Amino acid sequence: MTRQGDLYEPKPEHKFSFGLWTVGNRGRDPFGDFVRSAISPVEIVYMLAEVGAWGVNLHDNDLVPIDATCAERGGIIRNFKKACKESGLVVPMATVSLFFHPVFRDGAFTANDHEVRAYALQKTMRAMDLGAELGAKIFVLWGGREGVETDACRRPDEAVKRLRQAVNYLCEYNIDKKYGYKFALEAKPNEPRADIYMATIGHYLGFIPTLDHPDMVGVNPEFAHEQMAGLNFLHGVAQAWEAGKLFHIDLNDQMPGRYDQDLRFGSVSLKSAFWLVKFLEDVKYEGPRHFDAHAYRTEDYEGVKQFARGCMRTYLVFREKSRQWNADKEIQALLKETSVSANGTPKPGRYSRRQAADLLAHHFDTDAILKRKLPYERLDQLTVDILAGVR
Amino acid sequence: MTRQGDLYEPKPEHKFSFGLWTVGNRGRDPFGDFVRSAISPVEIVYMLAEVGAWGVNLHDNDLVPIDATCAERGGIIRNFKKACKESGLVVPMATVSLFFHPVFRDGAFTANDHEVRAYALQKTMRAMDLGAELGAKIFVLWGGREGVETDACRRPDEAVKRLRQAVNYLCEYNIDKKYGYKFALEAKPNEPRADIYMATIGHYLGFIPTLDHPDMVGVNPEFAHEQMAGLNFLHGVAQAWEAGKLFHIDLNDQMPGRYDQDLRFGSVSLKSAFWLVKFLEDVKYEGPRHFDAHAYRTEDYEGVKQFARGCMRTYLVFREKSRQWNADKEIQALLKETSVSANGTPKPGRYSRRQAADLLAHHFDTDAILKRKLPYERLDQLTVDILAGVR
Amino acid sequence: MTRQGDLYEPKPEHKFSFGLWTVGNRGRDPFGDFVRSAISPVEIVYMLAEVGAWGVNLHDNDLVPIDATCAERGGIIRNFKKACKESGLVVPMATVSLFFHPVFRDGAFTANDHEVRAYALQKTMRAMDLGAELGAKIFVLWGGREGVETDACRRPDEAVKRLRQAVNYLCEYNIDKKYGYKFALEAKPNEPRADIYMATIGHYLGFIPTLDHPDMVGVNPEFAHEQMAGLNFLHGVAQAWEAGKLFHIDLNDQMPGRYDQDLRFGSVSLKSAFWLVKFLEDVKYEGPRHFDAHAYRTEDYEGVKQFARGCMRTYLVFREKSRQWNADKEIQALLKETSVSANGTPKPGRYSRRQAADLLAHHFDTDAILKRKLPYERLDQLTVDILAGVR
Amino acid sequence: MTRQGDLYEPKPEHKFSFGLWTVGNRGRDPFGDFVRSAISPVEIVYMLAEVGAWGVNLHDNDLVPIDATCAERGGIIRNFKKACKESGLVVPMATVSLFFHPVFRDGAFTANDHEVRAYALQKTMRAMDLGAELGAKIFVLWGGREGVETDACRRPDEAVKRLRQAVNYLCEYNIDKKYGYKFALEAKPNEPRADIYMATIGHYLGFIPTLDHPDMVGVNPEFAHEQMAGLNFLHGVAQAWEAGKLFHIDLNDQMPGRYDQDLRFGSVSLKSAFWLVKFLEDVKYEGPRHFDAHAYRTEDYEGVKQFARGCMRTYLVFREKSRQWNADKEIQALLKETSVSANGTPKPGRYSRRQAADLLAHHFDTDAILKRKLPYERLDQLTVDILAGVR
Repeated sequence: MTRQGDLYEPKPEHKFSFGLWTVGNRGRDPFGDFVRSAISPVEIVYMLAEVGAWGVNLHDNDLVPIDATCAERGGIIRNFKKACKESGLVVPMATVSLFFHPVFRDGAFTANDHEVRAYALQKTMRAMDLGAELGAKIFVLWGGREGVETDACRRPDEAVKRLRQAVNYLCEYNIDKKYGYKFALEAKPNEPRADIYMATIGHYLGFIPTLDHPDMVGVNPEFAHEQMAGLNFLHGVAQAWEAGKLFHIDLNDQMPGRYDQDLRFGSVSLKSAFWLVKFLEDVKYEGPRHFDAHAYRTEDYEGVKQFARGCMRTYLVFREKSRQWNADKEIQALLKETSVSANGTPKPGRYSRRQAADLLAHHFDTDAILKRKLPYERLDQLTVDILAGVR
Repeated sequence: MTRQGDLYEPKPEHKFSFGLWTVGNRGRDPFGDFVRSAISPVEIVYMLAEVGAWGVNLHDNDLVPIDATCAERGGIIRNFKKACKESGLVVPMATVSLFFHPVFRDGAFTANDHEVRAYALQKTMRAMDLGAELGAKIFVLWGGREGVETDACRRPDEAVKRLRQAVNYLCEYNIDKKYGYKFALEAKPNEPRADIYMATIGHYLGFIPTLDHPDMVGVNPEFAHEQMAGLNFLHGVAQAWEAGKLFHIDLNDQMPGRYDQDLRFGSVSLKSAFWLVKFLEDVKYEGPRHFDAHAYRTEDYEGVKQFARGCMRTYLVFREKSRQWNADKEIQALLKETSVSANGTPKPGRYSRRQAADLLAHHFDTDAILKRKLPYERLDQLTVDILAGVR
Repeated sequence: MTRQGDLYEPKPEHKFSFGLWTVGNRGRDPFGDFVRSAISPVEIVYMLAEVGAWGVNLHDNDLVPIDATCAERGGIIRNFKKACKESGLVVPMATVSLFFHPVFRDGAFTANDHEVRAYALQKTMRAMDLGAELGAKIFVLWGGREGVETDACRRPDEAVKRLRQAVNYLCEYNIDKKYGYKFALEAKPNEPRADIYMATIGHYLGFIPTLDHPDMVGVNPEFAHEQMAGLNFLHGVAQAWEAGKLFHIDLNDQMPGRYDQDLRFGSVSLKSAFWLVKFLEDVKYEGPRHFDAHAYRTEDYEGVKQFARGCMRTYLVFREKSRQWNADKEIQALLKETSVSANGTPKPGRYSRRQAADLLAHHFDTDAILKRKLPYERLDQLTVDILAGVR
Repeated sequence: MTRQGDLYEPKPEHKFSFGLWTVGNRGRDPFGDFVRSAISPVEIVYMLAEVGAWGVNLHDNDLVPIDATCAERGGIIRNFKKACKESGLVVPMATVSLFFHPVFRDGAFTANDHEVRAYALQKTMRAMDLGAELGAKIFVLWGGREGVETDACRRPDEAVKRLRQAVNYLCEYNIDKKYGYKFALEAKPNEPRADIYMATIGHYLGFIPTLDHPDMVGVNPEFAHEQMAGLNFLHGVAQAWEAGKLFHIDLNDQMPGRYDQDLRFGSVSLKSAFWLVKFLEDVKYEGPRHFDAHAYRTEDYEGVKQFARGCMRTYLVFREKSRQWNADKEIQALLKETSVSANGTPKPGRYSRRQAADLLAHHFDTDAILKRKLPYERLDQLTVDILAGVR
């Protein structure tokens, strides 16, 4: 028998993952210093295991310092793999930091200095090596510094070309090394640059078909990033899914039109988060549910655990509510009601000349159409009732 | 000899066009009534000719009332063509209103009621007939009501499928009728729906490659629409251009994060408008420069003319400033300076195993890279100086 | 015994009111025509009674057409009062339309044309007469057209002076006529003007103390309007309350950074709506809970009723959740925990030289302070649990 | 004879000031490390003198490290004063950092821990001592951490009370010590907190009249902060000015709806910046013009100087354009035209019963009013022409 409590406990099959940089975030921001002491990758692994996560993700330098020697690198990886093994965590995704080091102040793959572009490629290839060593099959690329403060510095079409060249190159490296990665491109409209190229999920969906190996490349939508531009996150995710391009997903929360907040999943936009969870569950998305968020700056590491537990709990609460929604007879009846229409209407499918002639000749009775009910207020209130647990 | 005054006078080769609905806008808004009396399409044509426009665009019902008889339609078109001919105006673009009539309250191509979807197709086909009769070669599709107030009403991936089916159907009709249209899809994030599907240029660029006839379909970016989401318009336009998809463009102005304002081109975002004009001129964009804007509600039709003249004048002013920018020696020297890098750096082009090995083996001297100058503040101030006419 | 169902049924003591313009909204927007047929004020009164509302509010021209004769006016008012009486509804608030008629295209009290300013005063005085006749004790002033598209048209400090003069005048009229009104000023950042003067609750709180009769004037905060600017509505409301200036409140919902949506209360921003309800109930706010919202354009009048019921139901659901939150022992313990601090710390109250000297001499052990817990992640997750009904 | 070049050269009478933290900003952001090496306060003073600034402002810890001994403090101040003297710079304004140290993670004056509140007072009093020692007469208070991530943590009206108590206390200290400070309160809507109390200029203008010494307290509006909320900066500044509360001003630039960008003044919002400069010059504002901005992260210290020069240059360019605007005969004629109205209209001034009766009895001919011209499109285009230097 399943008890309610169990329903909201994270299990490996839920595929909940966190980045080293999320629970390991020390709370520095542009106006203030660290509030939490440093914590090692190995400690983070055990913390994630304690709270019930399934996977841990990383940027290259989250694990291996940028100035580590080869020997240091080896030791660090061994210890990390050991901790993962002991605690039962997997490394589903790896990525690369092309933004922290000052050398990337003008971008990485799109920088004006071609030496920076070359270095960015090298650094990414090495990060791919690292991820492969840890078993990652998804490689995320977030071009956080690929952008501008002033469009005086380069033509934006040139930036697109540079970015394409870099991704094409990395795809070849992936093939050559038989890493079997899927690349997931992550969009963001701004911050830390005034404007970032490839501002939304959509822009990357438009970019991917222009690549040499489009099948190898998809997107990593992030809730906060689309929300920063005030866009409906669900719509972008659904478009990516429908195009077969939802390779990874970053869950968190964010108030629209603000700095990147990376708040606990489901802590602000309850309804948007609900629709998202419902969609992922309805379409049986099988990838990781990655929480790219961090705890409030008020917290110590006990608070960080509460934060991590909250992300997963809220996901599972909304998953149960999705099932309730799908099983609700009034909701299903209302949905059916809005999709009925008159007999005898042409149903345009594949085009044919005859079919088109029929359609053009048909008289539509718009008054009759307008009399049909579209009770979306009721439908939405039932959703709110389910969300609030009063139905 | 060219005088400065001439430089800012619109001429046919500038391809400036306005919609009937723009200069014909009567100033009704959600909180207030009409402020200007109705003006006929023929009167609008003469007004546009007077101010120096080259083209006039239209929705089907801007010209032919939705309830016009066949005979009425014929007369209206004859008169309109006559006015265009006499005044020397062309009709480069046509489009269809799938938003004004209440029957579209739940969308058109994506509506839940399949009769509405069929009617929307029929209405669009007839609008294509009309446009073809007037000589239009670009057909714009703006799905202003393709969206939701609540995501309870349909799954968003279903909406994408419906939209695809409709566009595929219309492409077949275009082929069948030999109209030779290019379709230009116009994105908008919200208003009049709480959220509109295909929120940005990027989303449409991602959608187009999934169509049956992707070559026939491009985008119609609108300054105000991207600006509503706070996105850098230039970046979206440049991505569309680079992908060969810039089939039309809507110029106006807009403060970010607000209702759709459709302000006079270049009246708010001077710098963004400048970069845009510079890009269109630099890449030698040959399509229409369409102003999808309307005059303040304070104006009478004399004020509307001032508005229309202002749109074109500011475009031409920025065009001249673009030339000045490109010819500025200090600017060109700065741009060159930022693109120099050290000898001996690997230059990754097409991938090869050997090339990758070289790249991985190379030592990058990041300290040396950091010493190179990126004088973008100076570059941007020079741009401001040119914009302000003080250089 | 109270059943759960009863808890969420509206009753007169809840003081739920709607404007004639809200449930009577016919769904016209800038891109589309009416979707609902006209409904008379008397019909609206009976509809509001049916769904359980307590009060009905109105602009002058919601009830009496702008061109009504004196005799017509009399008849309309008699019928309306009769309907109110029969259905048990009160008229707690009246207001004036200074935005619909084209004469206000440049504003009303702040218009450049002093004849417009005089007419706006006259119209408001007559609206005050009307409201008084109906028993209203709150008079709302929303200056929807007091703004600009270009700041070229007047100096904004001049606009402030004109606005002050108008409000002072109306206060005198209120005194003279012994109407006993409290004026409630309603802010909005933009729409229908590009920018509206007095953009937020705060701006009006700053304006009021500069009036001749500040005690007679407070604010009417509207959820959607503050949300348009991305501001925390609760904070503004709380500041107004703390200053004794919360004279009325407009409840609805709105996605930030968009056109004015006036969505069903609690339908988008569940958490913000919850904090607001909790605050109003905690401080025992006794004014009307006015829903300034309208139904989706998809609805017929049955849908409008569902919309109205939903507004009230969600308020009551959140009221119950507020009680649960206040009664939650873990929440209360956490709140207490965060407010404890070390013994011996100076507690600066009223300033004295000795007290200041003590404070300056005190050594604060910041390391010890930092060790104290601020478990806000947990506190917030408990709130989410209560909101979702899983606690 | 004045040459154009001279017009745009900063001079002491322009009262241009910079904070130590602005030109001294080292370019760290949430996603990346320092890009510029540290530079001492004394070096900054000489740099500011070199570029032509008049004043230098500071937070306590910009000059004196938080852990400096009393002796160290003395030496630092002596050297700093010497540098100021030698370079001819004044210190017009001082402020206090109540946000950088982790002890302020939950706010300062509004923190839940009363020990933090006491410490914040002490730190501010010491910062006032420091500022007074340097000759500052304006003391800015920016409550950057006075806010929340979750409103669960405290009631917002309690926060208002705590803030009032603190400011009252500091006013008493100011009186007691005869420092003669004017306090200037600086609002911001969000960042680094999810929401900050006192979100806009308006909220502070509403707060100030509730203080014990309202005359001693005004506001320090910051361009970027109001722009983050998408508000018209000029309107807020004008309201503050009109209320006698414009005690200081922070000039920079910012794209709306984004993270705090602190861009070079006039580099993005050319038109808004122009209106602002015009207003400050028109009303003869005599306070400092403080640039609270920093250079792009791409720059070295030569670029920082370019940045600083650009801020001042653009201000002076707009100042000249303001004069041109005021002297433009067509503009002045248009403004006059829009303010004419019919003879015989009542002119409501001070209220009297007779005057009100006249006003109520007057017939307004709205059709005639509507025929008057309001040529704001032309007026705005003339402004754009002046801004672009083509008039």
